[in-house]
Amino acid sequence: MNKLTSQEKDFSTWYNNIVLRAELADYAPVKGCMVIRPYGYGIWENIQSILDKMIKSVGVQNAYFPLFIPESFIHKEKEHLAGFSPELAVVTYGGGKELEEKLIVRPTSETIINAMFSKWIQSFRDLPLLINQWANIVRWEMRTRLFLRTTEFLWQEGHTAHSTHDEASEMALTILAIYRDFMQNTLAIPVIYGTKTLSQRFAGAIETYTIEAMMGDRKALQAGTSHDLGQNFSKAFDITYQTKENKLDYVWQTSWGVSTRLIGAVVMVHGDDKGLVLPPSIAPIQVIIVPIWKGDEKGKTVKAVLSLKKRLKNSNKDSGSSLRVRVDTREEFTPGFKFNEWEMKGVPLRVEIGPRDIENSTVTIARRDEGTRMVVKSSEAVEVIIRILNEIQKNLLIKAKRFMDDNTYLVDDWNEFKHKTGFILSHWCGGAKCETNIQNETNMTIRCISIDTEEEDGKCIFCGKKSKRRVVFAKAY
Amino acid sequence: MNKLTSQEKDFSTWYNNIVLRAELADYAPVKGCMVIRPYGYGIWENIQSILDKMIKSVGVQNAYFPLFIPESFIHKEKEHLAGFSPELAVVTYGGGKELEEKLIVRPTSETIINAMFSKWIQSFRDLPLLINQWANIVRWEMRTRLFLRTTEFLWQEGHTAHSTHDEASEMALTILAIYRDFMQNTLAIPVIYGTKTLSQRFAGAIETYTIEAMMGDRKALQAGTSHDLGQNFSKAFDITYQTKENKLDYVWQTSWGVSTRLIGAVVMVHGDDKGLVLPPSIAPIQVIIVPIWKGDEKGKTVKAVLSLKKRLKNSNKDSGSSLRVRVDTREEFTPGFKFNEWEMKGVPLRVEIGPRDIENSTVTIARRDEGTRMVVKSSEAVEVIIRILNEIQKNLLIKAKRFMDDNTYLVDDWNEFKHKTGFILSHWCGGAKCETNIQNETNMTIRCISIDTEEEDGKCIFCGKKSKRRVVFAKAY
Repeated sequence: MNKLTSQEKDFSTWYNNIVLRAELADYAPVKGCMVIRPYGYGIWENIQSILDKMIKSVGVQNAYFPLFIPESFIHKEKEHLAGFSPELAVVTYGGGKELEEKLIVRPTSETIINAMFSKWIQSFRDLPLLINQWANIVRWEMRTRLFLRTTEFLWQEGHTAHSTHDEASEMALTILAIYRDFMQNTLAIPVIYGTKTLSQRFAGAIETYTIEAMMGDRKALQAGTSHDLGQNFSKAFDITYQTKENKLDYVWQTSWGVSTRLIGAVVMVHGDDKGLVLPPSIAPIQVIIVPIWKGDEKGKTVKAVLSLKKRLKNSNKDSGSSLRVRVDTREEFTPGFKFNEWEMKGVPLRVEIGPRDIENSTVTIARRDEGTRMVVKSSEAVEVIIRILNEIQKNLLIKAKRFMDDNTYLVDDWNEFKHKTGFILSHWCGGAKCETNIQNETNMTIRCISIDTEEEDGKCIFCGKKSKRRVVFAKAY
Repeated sequence: MNKLTSQEKDFSTWYNNIVLRAELADYAPVKGCMVIRPYGYGIWENIQSILDKMIKSVGVQNAYFPLFIPESFIHKEKEHLAGFSPELAVVTYGGGKELEEKLIVRPTSETIINAMFSKWIQSFRDLPLLINQWANIVRWEMRTRLFLRTTEFLWQEGHTAHSTHDEASEMALTILAIYRDFMQNTLAIPVIYGTKTLSQRFAGAIETYTIEAMMGDRKALQAGTSHDLGQNFSKAFDITYQTKENKLDYVWQTSWGVSTRLIGAVVMVHGDDKGLVLPPSIAPIQVIIVPIWKGDEKGKTVKAVLSLKKRLKNSNKDSGSSLRVRVDTREEFTPGFKFNEWEMKGVPLRVEIGPRDIENSTVTIARRDEGTRMVVKSSEAVEVIIRILNEIQKNLLIKAKRFMDDNTYLVDDWNEFKHKTGFILSHWCGGAKCETNIQNETNMTIRCISIDTEEEDGKCIFCGKKSKRRVVFAKAY
């Protein structure tokens, strides 16, 4: 197999190589579409399982809405239409006949879901209505990239309706907090967060909250968004309810989502020149055990390996999920070949059991994140493995956080601004014109306006006008 | 609320009423499509979770393939094309432009998946390849029915490739056995099973295995199918592999699926004139606790209710899944209203805690399946509830089995045949012409040719020619 292109040499080629070689995904025969292969889909299943519980923990229920949206629905909210119409896939024939009304393949489901909400919501007793769906989405993309931007992708999209703006706004922020927690504690990816500028806002929202992560090439990836929709959609779809005071009012709404793009983020944040590096929390295989034997030692070795596998599987039962362990007994490959393959696939921890281990009742443990190896007593192996998996999970976040911090700069000088790569904290006057000019000259966009930073007097990095706060600039995916 | 139409009076109206009133699903604004509401989707999530584990237990892995299929792919396997072309939805515009090649919205994924298989399979070492996906499917249906036949539905579809026909054939039967097990032990629905006649076979298969269940109106519902595809698709998509003997051969394949239609089956098999009746294994709420108090007793009653809820939640931890319990403390509704609502929603077991229960340290338990009530000591409540849930699960299967047996007939006389409703076991000569004539005159189709029944000499119910075995006739959904 050819050597991987290094990150340093060509990050973009390195990324594509990893995705294909680790068998996360493949190009589909339809332009811009991808196939998510079992190993990549296993990561998505783990993401789903953990995030789904977090979303449900705040009272949200899953449902399923149709793939097809009548064309007229998309036209009901004007900004929404303007934002999405260049990206639509349109069904014009069904059952052998030309359709009377064209159908849009959902690019997001605000319109179809709100058409149903207007039917279901009558009184304050029906509120809040908190719905999520896991679904496929189609947006006609010109330049596509596996996981990061494809014509079809998988996501979850939450849609909620509330009786007050305060409550809707709080919901949007609750979800943002869940996304941050998930990114940091499950994917081991630190994020910055805040609001989007008007130009980057979701089409139809009055405020878009975003989480942004720094990839290995110092570019930003928008990892998830949560929108305060105000009453824009409830007015377009006539979603009214009877208040406690017997009046009729429009509901206040939110929508929010993360997608299979998160898998791309994991690759680009943790991966290295040997391949993928997966956080244990989402790794389809957390521990790979490789037996190594010569001649007639096979029986003894395989027995030791299977016994360890069994002990590992039984170890974590209290926490409700057993460890994900696989044994690689393939005889057609050398141990060295196997080591490379599982390193490419980012398995967090490898256990080797060889002749010396059998002799000494030990096992050899290799960490994917640090590349270190250690020999431990077989009797202590389970305990040590669980401890190291926890350490790897934490270590990946610490490393990623350090990388982000090392590449985040306070910049007040335009020349310096133009030549930096990373997250650039600079003052901005708030003008759309400066925002556009900066993008045209540097290819950097405002990733977010932090919510938590304190006000500070300064001058716009581009025009020099007064500014009350820094915003985060970066080149972005 | 209006009374439900009774099953006896109009089964079809009864069914629609239940689906809408129990809030399982709703009609979508797009013709023939449905919205699966949270309560219905909760059932689907439980179905997915259990069936997914069973499918994975035989080595199948999940993946995800594109929604869109290039039109040319559908044309590659002729019978497949002929079978599906009347039902296709076609995308002709994308990103504002007319497409060069039209895209079909998947009606099933044999073609797109096999295009990928031909890329991934090179050698006998890549076999067997066992893939499943959970996805949405579109078939343009003329007469639609919530859950039973809709333009879009959700399903799982398995696709496998093997090096021998024996192995593929065994795979198709292994999955059939999993489906039977799942129907009986999870959905509490007995099934008959066997092969389809040529006319009812999947378009492109050399054999279709089916499971068929009897609904409350004595009609049959095809609940799942498993296909032996032979080499039809591997030849159409050029899926070859290098054998151990260094020859090139086409792979042998299977495909198989069950869909959200199963939710319709649960409604029609177990439901009664009070509403839905759910098997505990898939009920989103297994136990509903209704506190009943007067005046100043609220505090005490709610405390007792929450304590029981906590004990129930903690009770089942060993089995890895805690009981699904909800407390209904809504003050705007009377206990009677609540009883009706939860009966409509088919919650298997209701617990009432009222003034007398508080006084005597008891709880009152009502079974949805039998309508019986019993008073048990509060200290024994958890144990009794778990036992009764198990009994309900078994009882529903027994009742459904008895109903199926009571409505299954051996018939050798054409006049009798024409006037019976249920599963009719009659002799058939094997001719397509008799099959068509029987369908035209009685509206009955051959649901399956049993695999396990012994041969028996007889005469075709229609033409009187010699026949070696009975087949199962029924009117079907």
